[in-house]
Amino acid sequence: MTQIATPRERLLKTAAELFYAEGAAAVGVERLCKAAGVSKRSMYQLFTTKDEVIAESLRTYGPATVAGYFPADPKAMPARERILHVFARLEEQSAGPAFHGCPFVNTAVELHDPRHEASVVALSFKDRLEGYFLEHAKAMGVADPAFLAARLTMLFDGAAVRAVMRAEPLRGVALRAAKQLLGSEV
Amino acid sequence: MTQIATPRERLLKTAAELFYAEGAAAVGVERLCKAAGVSKRSMYQLFTTKDEVIAESLRTYGPATVAGYFPADPKAMPARERILHVFARLEEQSAGPAFHGCPFVNTAVELHDPRHEASVVALSFKDRLEGYFLEHAKAMGVADPAFLAARLTMLFDGAAVRAVMRAEPLRGVALRAAKQLLGSEV
Repeated sequence: MTQIATPRERLLKTAAELFYAEGAAAVGVERLCKAAGVSKRSMYQLFTTKDEVIAESLRTYGPATVAGYFPADPKAMPARERILHVFARLEEQSAGPAFHGCPFVNTAVELHDPRHEASVVALSFKDRLEGYFLEHAKAMGVADPAFLAARLTMLFDGAAVRAVMRAEPLRGVALRAAKQLLGSEV
Repeated sequence: MTQIATPRERLLKTAAELFYAEGAAAVGVERLCKAAGVSKRSMYQLFTTKDEVIAESLRTYGPATVAGYFPADPKAMPARERILHVFARLEEQSAGPAFHGCPFVNTAVELHDPRHEASVVALSFKDRLEGYFLEHAKAMGVADPAFLAARLTMLFDGAAVRAVMRAEPLRGVALRAAKQLLGSEV
């Protein structure tokens, strides 16, 4: 990590990486600060609590995580393909060594508190995914786009959990399931 | 909790409850022992590490968790109903104040280590659920029972995550999705 970054930037980037790889509850302030090369004193000058660091790192890096599942140019493809793109990306991600599931699900699960600031942030990003599904489900002209969007989100989250629990790539099961889901809806 | 239980029993029961409600990574040995009314010295005489307590509490209370989703007398109902029963139970559970999702998913997510003894135990219980779906998918005579079982498991896990993230009951969305899934398969 370049030393040009400010202590705040280093803390947030290190937090996003460590919390994703090892867990927001498991990684303590001690370890976070050491990895970021920032003193605890400096951290507490920048953030009131570790909880605030969790929420802020998610807020900072969440948009890139979500965008990583969306096509660069959705208008160039039919609505159905825009939805399937997300599952194709999930298939790819699940095959990578650095995959630890969905960071928003992980944060919500780990914190065990839906009112925690970071859980609220996590849900807002999950809503972006479901909002994306909803938009394109509507464009597909299905009978109940909100229900289809909910089913697609549940499939996405269940598939990510599957890859995490089995510690193996999805090997097409999520994309195939998404195709069947869309097939039965058109 | 009755004081007739041995320290080992008290530790395992308290661990199962606290880890489910607050998280296996978040609850420390200090707090666990205090809640169980067992000294740390006694805990370390019974278990080598906290990791062993996590695994053993899951091993001890996992069977009851899984059984809670299965019908008491599956033979009394058609195969399709045997599968739907699981989702009806999940709907009920998600509406309860003590619902924190699937303890097996939570443990795997929180530990961030598929080789951790408790993650291996968690996966074995998840496999029991998928095995149940597979058995009854076969009984339904569907074309690809293993794929249907995988889809049902992903729906189950995604629905549990949904209830956790939104901190609200599923309100029928999981059961309805399961019905559509089975409907498209027969």
